[in-house]
Amino acid sequence: MRWTKSHIHTIKEVPADAEIPSHQLMVRGGYIKKVAQGIFTYGALALRSLKKFEEIVREELDKRDCTEILMPMVQPRELWDESHRWTDMGKGLLKFKNRLDQDFCLGATHEEVVTDYVRRDVKSYRDLPVNLYQIQTKYRDEVRPRFGLLRGREFIMKDAYSFDVDTAHAHKSYALMFEAYTAIFKRLGVKFASVKADSGNIGGNMSEEFHILADSGEDGLLVSEDGKFAANVEVCPAIDATPHVSADKELKPIEKFATPGLKTIEDLAKMTGVEPRNLVKTLFFSAAEEGSKEFKPVCVLVRGSDELNPIKLKTLLGMSNPPVMLNDQEVNKVTNSWPGSCGPVGLTIPIYMDNGVQGLKNYIVGANEKGFHIRNVNHDRDYKPTKIADLRMAREGDKNPAGPGLLKAFRGIEVGHIFYLGTKYSKAMNANYLNEKGESTPIEMGCYGIGVSRTVQAVIEQCNDKDGIIWPTAIAPFHVHICLLDPEAADAVQVANKLYEDLQSSGVEVLLDDRNERPGVKFKDADLLGMPYRLVVGSRGLQTGEVELVVRRSKETAKVKVDAVVERVKGLVTQDKKV
Amino acid sequence: MRWTKSHIHTIKEVPADAEIPSHQLMVRGGYIKKVAQGIFTYGALALRSLKKFEEIVREELDKRDCTEILMPMVQPRELWDESHRWTDMGKGLLKFKNRLDQDFCLGATHEEVVTDYVRRDVKSYRDLPVNLYQIQTKYRDEVRPRFGLLRGREFIMKDAYSFDVDTAHAHKSYALMFEAYTAIFKRLGVKFASVKADSGNIGGNMSEEFHILADSGEDGLLVSEDGKFAANVEVCPAIDATPHVSADKELKPIEKFATPGLKTIEDLAKMTGVEPRNLVKTLFFSAAEEGSKEFKPVCVLVRGSDELNPIKLKTLLGMSNPPVMLNDQEVNKVTNSWPGSCGPVGLTIPIYMDNGVQGLKNYIVGANEKGFHIRNVNHDRDYKPTKIADLRMAREGDKNPAGPGLLKAFRGIEVGHIFYLGTKYSKAMNANYLNEKGESTPIEMGCYGIGVSRTVQAVIEQCNDKDGIIWPTAIAPFHVHICLLDPEAADAVQVANKLYEDLQSSGVEVLLDDRNERPGVKFKDADLLGMPYRLVVGSRGLQTGEVELVVRRSKETAKVKVDAVVERVKGLVTQDKKV
Repeated sequence: MRWTKSHIHTIKEVPADAEIPSHQLMVRGGYIKKVAQGIFTYGALALRSLKKFEEIVREELDKRDCTEILMPMVQPRELWDESHRWTDMGKGLLKFKNRLDQDFCLGATHEEVVTDYVRRDVKSYRDLPVNLYQIQTKYRDEVRPRFGLLRGREFIMKDAYSFDVDTAHAHKSYALMFEAYTAIFKRLGVKFASVKADSGNIGGNMSEEFHILADSGEDGLLVSEDGKFAANVEVCPAIDATPHVSADKELKPIEKFATPGLKTIEDLAKMTGVEPRNLVKTLFFSAAEEGSKEFKPVCVLVRGSDELNPIKLKTLLGMSNPPVMLNDQEVNKVTNSWPGSCGPVGLTIPIYMDNGVQGLKNYIVGANEKGFHIRNVNHDRDYKPTKIADLRMAREGDKNPAGPGLLKAFRGIEVGHIFYLGTKYSKAMNANYLNEKGESTPIEMGCYGIGVSRTVQAVIEQCNDKDGIIWPTAIAPFHVHICLLDPEAADAVQVANKLYEDLQSSGVEVLLDDRNERPGVKFKDADLLGMPYRLVVGSRGLQTGEVELVVRRSKETAKVKVDAVVERVKGLVTQDKKV
Repeated sequence: MRWTKSHIHTIKEVPADAEIPSHQLMVRGGYIKKVAQGIFTYGALALRSLKKFEEIVREELDKRDCTEILMPMVQPRELWDESHRWTDMGKGLLKFKNRLDQDFCLGATHEEVVTDYVRRDVKSYRDLPVNLYQIQTKYRDEVRPRFGLLRGREFIMKDAYSFDVDTAHAHKSYALMFEAYTAIFKRLGVKFASVKADSGNIGGNMSEEFHILADSGEDGLLVSEDGKFAANVEVCPAIDATPHVSADKELKPIEKFATPGLKTIEDLAKMTGVEPRNLVKTLFFSAAEEGSKEFKPVCVLVRGSDELNPIKLKTLLGMSNPPVMLNDQEVNKVTNSWPGSCGPVGLTIPIYMDNGVQGLKNYIVGANEKGFHIRNVNHDRDYKPTKIADLRMAREGDKNPAGPGLLKAFRGIEVGHIFYLGTKYSKAMNANYLNEKGESTPIEMGCYGIGVSRTVQAVIEQCNDKDGIIWPTAIAPFHVHICLLDPEAADAVQVANKLYEDLQSSGVEVLLDDRNERPGVKFKDADLLGMPYRLVVGSRGLQTGEVELVVRRSKETAKVKVDAVVERVKGLVTQDKKV
């Protein structure tokens, strides 16, 4: 592509709403332009990267007998009523009426449409398995879109759906998609991790996320030292590296003491001189599902040094969304006291105790009397935990739950998520098949997403420096960026044009900066746009028959004879693609 | 693709709402499935055809320095307010509020978004020309979607927009797009025509349509015998092949006569024995724009044998939409009479006379008195036409307006439309550039659409027979359909698999029907799905080392030795692609 024949415009100002490097760089490089909050136009260069990534996705899925189709973005309410998600999805689902006053929504995801598609065709077990996917624009009405393509409203997604006869086969389909996703992200040439994850409210009980690692990533990940175990912190089992047990041997008698105005564990630790990990925090949650009017309070105990993991509590309570904390009035109703002075002793509601509390003896908790705590409290003697379970957030330094060694912490940007769904949608929507005995049986499903536009930006978030983007070759808009320094010198123009043509003929994709601009401007733009290789063609170098080759990532430069350039660059690109 | 590994399901029943062959065949072949009125899921086979067509479009546009970008489907009201189309587009534009109560619409077309995109970057004449295009899902809230993909609500479109410094350059861009469109539709290998067209209310005054010819096409086209002139009947000049002149030499005096209960020209012809082409029809229209409360009646005269062309009248009156006819009360207000007995004599409103009336003498018109007509009426003597112009519909047998010979009639499905827009959008949206003198100047624009999903169905509408679709090779989902007749016979399976692999390795795309079904079922499905070539692999033929090759279009069959198949089929496909 010739710069002057396309519509590439870089800008100098960092937009005020771009908080992270990848968003800033995409805007500055003209890769994206905001049309409205969370809604963008993709420029020519961004589109090339998107399409390259889409092709990688297609190749890996097609190889595994997935079939590409294309479902509509505008979807009728009737299908979403069948799965109850018309209401369950809340305000994230954008709903509207058409001119005939019929209800529609913009597809935020396509479980309903695809299940309807399949149930109309699948009659018998002989029609299964099926794995259908699409690459399609999706819309989610985010309250607060931010970070450019990372949390947009309109975005491009690859979503796949598997249909199987039974759980065993569904698990096989799931495993095959895990393999496909691993292959897809490997081909990107960036650091990524697959981790165990929570299924959210999409249904099913088995799910894994794929993350591109980046310091600004929204998700916390924990990975074992041997790399064999990885989980989102949301679901990572928490095990003390060294079991923490109180020094005390004997249980002492309870003593009440005044703690006026004291609110936090830190205050208590300071006042009593006891380390937070030897204190116990008492928390109160509602075990009632959102929207329900029932009052179902529960008490949760964790060590003062630990953080409760709401996802683990949700799972323990069998809820579909994380439970919300009780407010002060509700706490008072349960304890006759107020937050800051509450404890488990004397409560009549269920008490869930984190594993970590088990090793403690003679600890301090609130007295359920405003301004008082009690010390020398012991479970089993002073109160009976309803259940002891893993309820705290895991963290770096915890024991690897699946093997030797400890856990290390990373931050990641979620770019893929695979779910085993079971029969949630097929049962709700009557998607059945006749098994070998002729019995009508609900189809077992899985669903598998990749945020296509998100991935492209996540790659930039991992791959950039102070000067701009550093594209991995796999999804770089172009492999080579030719800076033609003297666009009015016949020799330079001729060499640049010849390299442009010859490189393209040998399969190397080239962006030719043929503008009438100063070298400094061209170099800055080349760094910003971030193609893996740069060729500098100028009259001065050509006096010795050479052009300069610059590797974007390392900034290494080399002089290369003009007639050796094509082979050299082709070799570099080919090697990159093999990785 | 192996049939058993994909999700291809043909159906026997013709759906009740599928009125034309292409719609019926797409549904029966599982190419599309209705999700809601005018909204479809594209199956794997349809998607392959769509993508092939998209690639043809891309190649021809990229070759001509057009740059592909991708604009959003969800668009903010603000941009549409700038062009006034938020209201002007009426109910066809689907509008909604997001969760923050902000107004948005679904993109029905992208002039506003692209003009905004360009105005943010283009500073000077040096930044022009630009031609940006996208292939994107569009939504138009059709009142009555029908004919499958031909008039859908959600559809795929290629839209391109050119930006130039002045009219001369804009016309050059327009001409280049005409050339690109011609190349694109030629590559499809179907009969098509480009015709002069009306610009509708999109703006500008130069536009041409591209039609795929098909008997059920919604549009009437007129083409000269030498093929050099073609126009949509809406805008085709109407010239009598032989000028029609009355036999009378003298003007006779007017006579009134009773015509009780007479309503139509046919009634009048029957009663008087005068041929319709010697009678004059008097019609009444409102020259006020839609929504205006002004009463601006006009009278229009055409011969009894002719049909008024509302687009020509619209253009003559300088209106943006075709004028509507007056109702009976309004006619009465103008004539003191009622439709059936009206005529031009004595009227005080403007009278527009079609060219065809000019040659008539002593003709009959209504007397403006209920139940009476007058004969021997003559223009100029009895009434003064405000203007004489070409106002009738042209038809087959009319004179070619651009050269020798007559016009022939065709029916077509509009699949492409190119417009020279001028500065309608750039002026409304302040899309200016600085010219060489440093003056701020509005950019000259053009817009260019191709209905991508529509084209695929239009091709089927032209290319089918009683058994099913007959794909042209260029956009056939697969080139070859292998019917494996004996999926349990080792020799047949082995040959079919080898042909499947070998054909694919040599660039031929293959659908392998490896189902356990009767030969009759497989042949019927192969005819229905319509791949250009079919290979029948069965144990019986293999006894003599042969498979059967069937050409879908001609149904010609040939026995081909197994080891000659790949070369033979590859040759056929290569030859097809050259056309």
